[in-house]
Amino acid sequence: MPLVDLNGTLGESFGTWQKGMDEAMLRIVSSASMACGMHAGDPLVMQTTVASARRVGACIGAEIGYPDLQGYGQRDLSMNPYEIYVYSLYQIGALTAMCRANGVRLDYVKPHGALYRRACQELAVAKSIARAIRDTDKDVILVGALGSVVEEAAAGNGIPFVGEVFADRGYREDGTLIPKGERGDVVSNPAIAAERVLRLLQQSTPSVENTSDGTKPLTIGIHGDYPNATKVAFAVKEALEVNGFTIAGLRSLVYITNTLDKEQAP
Amino acid sequence: MPLVDLNGTLGESFGTWQKGMDEAMLRIVSSASMACGMHAGDPLVMQTTVASARRVGACIGAEIGYPDLQGYGQRDLSMNPYEIYVYSLYQIGALTAMCRANGVRLDYVKPHGALYRRACQELAVAKSIARAIRDTDKDVILVGALGSVVEEAAAGNGIPFVGEVFADRGYREDGTLIPKGERGDVVSNPAIAAERVLRLLQQSTPSVENTSDGTKPLTIGIHGDYPNATKVAFAVKEALEVNGFTIAGLRSLVYITNTLDKEQAP
Amino acid sequence: MPLVDLNGTLGESFGTWQKGMDEAMLRIVSSASMACGMHAGDPLVMQTTVASARRVGACIGAEIGYPDLQGYGQRDLSMNPYEIYVYSLYQIGALTAMCRANGVRLDYVKPHGALYRRACQELAVAKSIARAIRDTDKDVILVGALGSVVEEAAAGNGIPFVGEVFADRGYREDGTLIPKGERGDVVSNPAIAAERVLRLLQQSTPSVENTSDGTKPLTIGIHGDYPNATKVAFAVKEALEVNGFTIAGLRSLVYITNTLDKEQAP
Amino acid sequence: MPLVDLNGTLGESFGTWQKGMDEAMLRIVSSASMACGMHAGDPLVMQTTVASARRVGACIGAEIGYPDLQGYGQRDLSMNPYEIYVYSLYQIGALTAMCRANGVRLDYVKPHGALYRRACQELAVAKSIARAIRDTDKDVILVGALGSVVEEAAAGNGIPFVGEVFADRGYREDGTLIPKGERGDVVSNPAIAAERVLRLLQQSTPSVENTSDGTKPLTIGIHGDYPNATKVAFAVKEALEVNGFTIAGLRSLVYITNTLDKEQAP
Repeated sequence: MPLVDLNGTLGESFGTWQKGMDEAMLRIVSSASMACGMHAGDPLVMQTTVASARRVGACIGAEIGYPDLQGYGQRDLSMNPYEIYVYSLYQIGALTAMCRANGVRLDYVKPHGALYRRACQELAVAKSIARAIRDTDKDVILVGALGSVVEEAAAGNGIPFVGEVFADRGYREDGTLIPKGERGDVVSNPAIAAERVLRLLQQSTPSVENTSDGTKPLTIGIHGDYPNATKVAFAVKEALEVNGFTIAGLRSLVYITNTLDKEQAP
Repeated sequence: MPLVDLNGTLGESFGTWQKGMDEAMLRIVSSASMACGMHAGDPLVMQTTVASARRVGACIGAEIGYPDLQGYGQRDLSMNPYEIYVYSLYQIGALTAMCRANGVRLDYVKPHGALYRRACQELAVAKSIARAIRDTDKDVILVGALGSVVEEAAAGNGIPFVGEVFADRGYREDGTLIPKGERGDVVSNPAIAAERVLRLLQQSTPSVENTSDGTKPLTIGIHGDYPNATKVAFAVKEALEVNGFTIAGLRSLVYITNTLDKEQAP
Repeated sequence: MPLVDLNGTLGESFGTWQKGMDEAMLRIVSSASMACGMHAGDPLVMQTTVASARRVGACIGAEIGYPDLQGYGQRDLSMNPYEIYVYSLYQIGALTAMCRANGVRLDYVKPHGALYRRACQELAVAKSIARAIRDTDKDVILVGALGSVVEEAAAGNGIPFVGEVFADRGYREDGTLIPKGERGDVVSNPAIAAERVLRLLQQSTPSVENTSDGTKPLTIGIHGDYPNATKVAFAVKEALEVNGFTIAGLRSLVYITNTLDKEQAP
Repeated sequence: MPLVDLNGTLGESFGTWQKGMDEAMLRIVSSASMACGMHAGDPLVMQTTVASARRVGACIGAEIGYPDLQGYGQRDLSMNPYEIYVYSLYQIGALTAMCRANGVRLDYVKPHGALYRRACQELAVAKSIARAIRDTDKDVILVGALGSVVEEAAAGNGIPFVGEVFADRGYREDGTLIPKGERGDVVSNPAIAAERVLRLLQQSTPSVENTSDGTKPLTIGIHGDYPNATKVAFAVKEALEVNGFTIAGLRSLVYITNTLDKEQAP
């Protein structure tokens, strides 16, 4: 009964602008990745989204991004690693306060958009985010692309890591994402998305090869603002459950993994 | 040996724009009130200022304000009490993360500018801020104008309160502040500021009458961006010490007050 | 064949956040009121919206607001008249450049949200906006609530004025708006909205009494982000046309009015 | 009597944060490059700076930048050429309105910081800015690094161009700028800056070789926020005048150049 997490990007509304169908997504996913006011979200949206996630028992993640609301954090911004460290602290802290006020805890941190792509390629950037977690709460999990340098950054800072693959993004043969704007970049057909996720989990692709033994926890990412987001999420969830996977929040994934690690130790 | 705190508003730079002489002020004051990115400050400034305060052992306060950088938080903004509660959480959380990363703790919260004035007059607003403290860390002190409704808001939420008088602002006979722009609004002569503070502490004025018995802790506020700020701060400090007061950080003030309360109890 | 303008608030998207159905509205309205980046809109949205309005030949208006994206310009902000004057210049100028680049001209200026309400009540504020128009282009029309002090501000600065009534907002007996949040504040039933507009135009209500003689131009405002916006707009348009009104852009309204004025002169 | 322009970057204050000594600089320079609210400046600062420039008769330039106040427009931001075109329109339009309100005209446009560096290297970016000028006012001059692709972009769009060299920045042998943070990046010694400028103008360096015949207009840029800015500006001005140059605003430079061009035509 392998466990897998389904994380949806939520809380991406801003002011009076709505984005995504958060309540519907929260009925499906096991973890909620929330914008923290830099690329999307605002204090009111964050507070509401934490309360909603708490109601359904979803794990809570801080989705941290570049300070670029107009560009939705999708444009590269040449912040240096120290700036990224400090901006990570700021965003993590802000969402942590919302969590405390709602009687829950922050479970994980995941970069967003251009920062996600950069963190998965530049170790110094991944380390900045990992260090921000280490310096605020060592039990918070860092999420990054499966097989990316983010794992190394997490390990080096003594914090847990969970690898991510996207259900709604196209991958190339070599396991890297098809860039936005290119053919096949977004997968919005629920059946195809579900089938692809299963293939990723069952076959041996370069990017997920280590997950088969159950020791590498995995989260399936779904963008709440993509077309068909809830249908894709539902189809993926169903396919996973039918095929013997149990959907579980990020937090439980790491605990179980750690337990297995220890049991297997001589 | 009565104790009194000297708090300076610091960390009010933004990006490449400098404001105040933080390092010089930190050699004088016992507590540092830091902007949290809404009306002034930014993550980098906050991180630097927390580190500086830590180096000199100053208590650390979150100076929370309206989201209005261009107006420096001095313009009224009709946020409702719930919005203020949530924006307080956000700012408190962000600075708390900086504190954790620096190995210190957040000692107090104090509203800024237009929000300060409103919180001292509207109980619902003061309660919003007090609730944000209660919901994140009940040991954090709330600072507001001495004799204002902020004290009631703090008491109602079970959090400590310290009253404030400004060394560099003019007061009317009735203890209220002379509005900005009116004659006597700002006191920038160090000698006069020092003399006024002493008078406030020694004579029985309406606004400080309860401090003489030592059970009502008091903090003297000094605006780091005012003309002569460091000279005013130094003169006030010297006058206090010469007259038998001990300058002590906000945190120790409350502990000692609480201890006295208990000792005096039958 | 009395003329009347139908103006829709458009261009209120921001970054990747969509608001309103601008293309659909533009097929119905005769004038397009566009946010200018302070309370909504951004340069990209503005450019797109001007181009769309030009395609259908709609008049173009700058909807200027407080710098408060998160609050959508609906919160009061105590900017003084001079600040409002300068912020008006800024927003008018920015949209004017988009107009020039699209080969069209800016036809009118209309305040938004909290600034609209304030301008209709405080003459000094209305004058600030009127002066910003006068100082940039005296032919640009100022739009404000019918019967409000905005008309006086326009007249005093030698710029044209057109009064506005909203098709989708409830009015009290005395002609003032029912505040948001109160019963009857928003009219989202197309038939009712259409009937109300007709009544406003045909009966003698305090706020529109001077329009019957054709010398007081009138624009019917429709909020593009309200529920049923396009249906309300369509119903209103149809009702007006069936009842003998001709829908015409704000610009033509003023020219015709002025012509009538002159013809009637002895 | 060769002409040369001295342009100072001014209007870089923001809200209550002061930067530079604008009034002092305006007594020295012949052209004032003003931030437009994206990387620095705000509507109030812009209005004040235009009024000050008008008082001394300085030419007025829009210094346009990336929307990054916290980073002061010095961080790279991957806006695409279309986004840059539209953001240029916005900033040019906003400052143009201030100019109209002050009875002066916008004389030139110059990119700032990271956008300046990019525009001087990427033709597509330089073209975006040139097109924004062409589409709003073909008589406005585009300023860019002497010898850069900005000249080509201006020519292609039929707008005037003036090349710039900085008095207070270090250049490599090949005429490119020494990157910030490297030894020799900033020249803050007035005498050295003056001497360097003279050498640039009198000797045949790769970057200024075409200016000797008087047909290539040149502006000397001075950063108003650098240390010693007014002293450097004064020393440069004096050295130029002593050596037979006449300091003249950008606008007159182009007119004279064009006149010479025509006179020399067969």
